[in-house]
Amino acid sequence: MNVLGLVVEYNPFHNGHLHHLNASKSLVNSDYVVAVMSGNFVQRGEPAIIDKFSRAEIALKMGIDIVFELPFVYTIQDASGFANGAIGVLERTGVVSDLVFGSESADIEGLSQISDILINQPKEYKKTLNRYLKEGLSFPNARKYALNDYFTQISEEKEIIEKLEKSNDILGLEYLNALKLYDSKIKPQTIKRIGVNYNEEQYTGEISSATAIRKIIEDENIEKVKDALPDVSFNILKREIALKKGPVFLEDMRDMILSKLRMMNRNELSKIDGVKEGLDRRFLDCSKVSSTVNQLLMCVKTKRFTLTRIRRTLLKIFFDLTESEVQLYNKYGPQYLRVLGFSKKGQTLLGQIKKVSKYPIITTPSRYKRIYHKLSDESLSSNKKFNSIPEIFLKQIEYDFIASNIYSLLYKDRKYSIYEPDKVTKVLIHED
Amino acid sequence: MNVLGLVVEYNPFHNGHLHHLNASKSLVNSDYVVAVMSGNFVQRGEPAIIDKFSRAEIALKMGIDIVFELPFVYTIQDASGFANGAIGVLERTGVVSDLVFGSESADIEGLSQISDILINQPKEYKKTLNRYLKEGLSFPNARKYALNDYFTQISEEKEIIEKLEKSNDILGLEYLNALKLYDSKIKPQTIKRIGVNYNEEQYTGEISSATAIRKIIEDENIEKVKDALPDVSFNILKREIALKKGPVFLEDMRDMILSKLRMMNRNELSKIDGVKEGLDRRFLDCSKVSSTVNQLLMCVKTKRFTLTRIRRTLLKIFFDLTESEVQLYNKYGPQYLRVLGFSKKGQTLLGQIKKVSKYPIITTPSRYKRIYHKLSDESLSSNKKFNSIPEIFLKQIEYDFIASNIYSLLYKDRKYSIYEPDKVTKVLIHED
Repeated sequence: MNVLGLVVEYNPFHNGHLHHLNASKSLVNSDYVVAVMSGNFVQRGEPAIIDKFSRAEIALKMGIDIVFELPFVYTIQDASGFANGAIGVLERTGVVSDLVFGSESADIEGLSQISDILINQPKEYKKTLNRYLKEGLSFPNARKYALNDYFTQISEEKEIIEKLEKSNDILGLEYLNALKLYDSKIKPQTIKRIGVNYNEEQYTGEISSATAIRKIIEDENIEKVKDALPDVSFNILKREIALKKGPVFLEDMRDMILSKLRMMNRNELSKIDGVKEGLDRRFLDCSKVSSTVNQLLMCVKTKRFTLTRIRRTLLKIFFDLTESEVQLYNKYGPQYLRVLGFSKKGQTLLGQIKKVSKYPIITTPSRYKRIYHKLSDESLSSNKKFNSIPEIFLKQIEYDFIASNIYSLLYKDRKYSIYEPDKVTKVLIHED
Repeated sequence: MNVLGLVVEYNPFHNGHLHHLNASKSLVNSDYVVAVMSGNFVQRGEPAIIDKFSRAEIALKMGIDIVFELPFVYTIQDASGFANGAIGVLERTGVVSDLVFGSESADIEGLSQISDILINQPKEYKKTLNRYLKEGLSFPNARKYALNDYFTQISEEKEIIEKLEKSNDILGLEYLNALKLYDSKIKPQTIKRIGVNYNEEQYTGEISSATAIRKIIEDENIEKVKDALPDVSFNILKREIALKKGPVFLEDMRDMILSKLRMMNRNELSKIDGVKEGLDRRFLDCSKVSSTVNQLLMCVKTKRFTLTRIRRTLLKIFFDLTESEVQLYNKYGPQYLRVLGFSKKGQTLLGQIKKVSKYPIITTPSRYKRIYHKLSDESLSSNKKFNSIPEIFLKQIEYDFIASNIYSLLYKDRKYSIYEPDKVTKVLIHED
C-alpha cells in the first residue's frame, strides 16, 4: 500500500500546490495521500490568511485523504524544527510510505549526500565548521561554507552552496535530516518546483506564489487572484472573507504584539528561542519607537538576519516559546496526531493508523484532558500503548489551543472571538 | 504660608472640579495650590480620556500652581493604596499645609473618628472585625459592620455605615488614614460635593459627573458636553480629539487585554494584587469566551465585587502588578515627585520644595537612570540627601514609562505611538 505523505501550509491553496499534489501522486502511484499542515500560524512567522479549518476543508476537497495539524510549537520554528515536527507527524502515523517535496534543485541524491554529512558529522567537516563559527559566521553560513569545503576536498561536486541557498532545497534537506533522526522508512523523493520562487512577490497569473497571492488580497481584492487558485480554493477563500473571518495578516496583531513587547524586559526576552546576538535589545528598543508591526520588523532587521527569521522570532516572543522548551519539543517530537479532517476514503486509513500508531489520534481536542490522564496512568504501567510523554503532550496541545484562541481575536468580525475554536469545531468529514 | 494640596484625576476637568477648586482655595485662604494627579490610567481602572500632559495643561490653566503625577502603581489600586500614594506625594513635597477633599457627608469629625479606630484598632473593634471576616464577609463589609457595632456601643453615633458606602467618603477616610500613617502635619478639611454623585451616569447639564461626560463623548460627541466644562477644559479636550490623540476608552485595549489573558495561566494570575476568591479562574475562563472588554467585565462580575474593583484588577493583571510588589509600594510610599507642569508662580514654590523635600523632584524623566545611580551611590553614605530606596524608585518610575508606552498605542492616530511620551515630552511651564 502506497501512502503518500506531504508537508503543506496551503496559505492559500493555489495552482502550484495542485500541480505538486498531482505530480506527487503519479510519482509514487499512491493509494492514499495524507498531509501534515501548519495550523493558524505558518512558518513565515505570520498568522495564516484564513484559519486552519477552512484550509483543511480545501485540502480535503482537493483530494487529500487525511489532514493532520502540525502542532503549533513546530510551525514557527526554523527549517530544522519545522521539519522535525512535520516528519514526526508523518512518521508517527505508522502508515506513510513515501514523502514527496518540491525543491529548486530536484536533486534527491545531492541533498541526501549533504544530509549524510550533517547527520554523521565527519571529523574533517566538523573541524572546518568550528573554524568558520569561530571566525564569527552565523550558523547557516558556517555550515554552508564548511560543506562546500568538504565536498570540494572529497569530490568534484560543485553545486553544494546553491542547494543551501534556495528555501525549498533547505527545507527538503531538513526533511531528509529529520527522516534519519526518526530512523524512518519513509522514502523521500523530490519534484522540481514549477514557475516561481516561494518568496516571489510578483503576481504572475495562473502560477503565482502564495506570497504574491496574499499580497494582492491585502492590497487589492480577492477577485484579482481568481486565476491563480483552483475554484474550490477560491470559493472557500471568498466565503471566509465574506463571512468576515479572513483575510488575516500579521499587521492585525499590532496592538497585542507591541503592547506585549513594551512590557517585557531583557531577561524575559533572552529566554526565548532564537533571541540571540543582541536581538533582545533590538526588539525592546524598536518596540518603543514603532507604531506598526512592519515598522518594528524593519527596525529590528539587520543584514545578519532574514526578515522571515525576525518574524518567526517575533511570534516566538509573543507566544513565550522559550529555547529550553523548543529543545524539548525537538528532542521528543510531536506527541499526538491531531486530525483536522478526513475523506470517506481517508476514514479507512485512519482506522489503520489508530491500530498501528504509538501516539494518540485526536479528533475531539476538547477531550484532551482525558487523554492526558490516560497517558499519565499508562506511564506507570509496563505494557504501554502509547509512547507519548504526558507533560509534553499537554504543553504541545495547550499551545495549539492558545494559538487558536489568539487567532480568533484576529477574525474581522468579533462575533467569532467568543469561543475556543479548537473546543467547538468538529473534525471535518469530506463526503467524496 | 498656606499651601493647599488636592488629589485629582480631572478626567476630564469639569464645572464640579472648578467649584471644588475655588471653594477649597477660599476655605484655607491659600497662597499656592498643588495637585497630585493620576497619570494616563485612573482609579476607576481605565485609561484616562485624554493623556496626562493635556490634563496637566488644563489644571495649570485653571489655576493649579504645580501638577505632580501620582506614580502609576498607586493609580489603579483600591482607595487605600490610591490614598497612600497621593497623600505620600503631597506630604513628601514638605510644603503642603492643607488638604481639602470633596465628600458626601462633609463631616470631617465623623470621618476622623472612624479613621482613629481603623488606625489604632482597639481590641473590641478588632474582635468584632475578625468575627465578621470569619463569617465570610468581604473585608470592606466586615469593616463596615464592625465599625458600626463599635460606635453603637460607645456612643450614639448613627451615620457610620452611610459614611462607608459613599465613594468620596470612603476615599476621604483613606486620606485621613494615610495622613496618620505618614505622621503628617497637613490639616485635612472637607467640602460637601455639589450636584451629582461621582458614579452618576446621567448627564445633568452644567454640573455633570465625569462618568456622564465621558459617556456622552463616547456615544455622541464632544460638542454635547460643552455646558459641563469650563472653556479651557473644553477647548483642550476638543483639540486632543481633533489631533486624533483622544478620546481613549478601556475598550480600545481589547486586543492587548484579551490576548494577554488568553495566554496566562492560573499560577501567574494568582500572584496579581487583588486576584482572590476565584477571580483567577473567572478571568481566565471569561477571557476565552469574551469578544470585548465589556463582555469580559460582565462575565467576571459577581455580586461580591464591584465593577470598579473588577476593572482595576483587570488592569493590574494586564500590567503584571503583583501583590508582593504592591505591598512594598504601599509600605514605602512614592519614591519621587514627578512634576508634569507648573505655573510661573509655582516655580517659586518648586524651588522651595527642592530645598526641603527628601525625595528627588523629577522634571526630566529621561534622566531617571542618573538619579537612580545617584540614589544608589548615596545609599552607602551616612549623610543622605534623599530617603528614596533606589530599587523601588526604579521600579516605580519604570512603571510610569510602561503605562505611557501602552497608552501611546491607544492614541487614535498611530503616528503618536512612535516615541516614548515620558522621554520626549517637556515639563509644562504655564505663563500666567
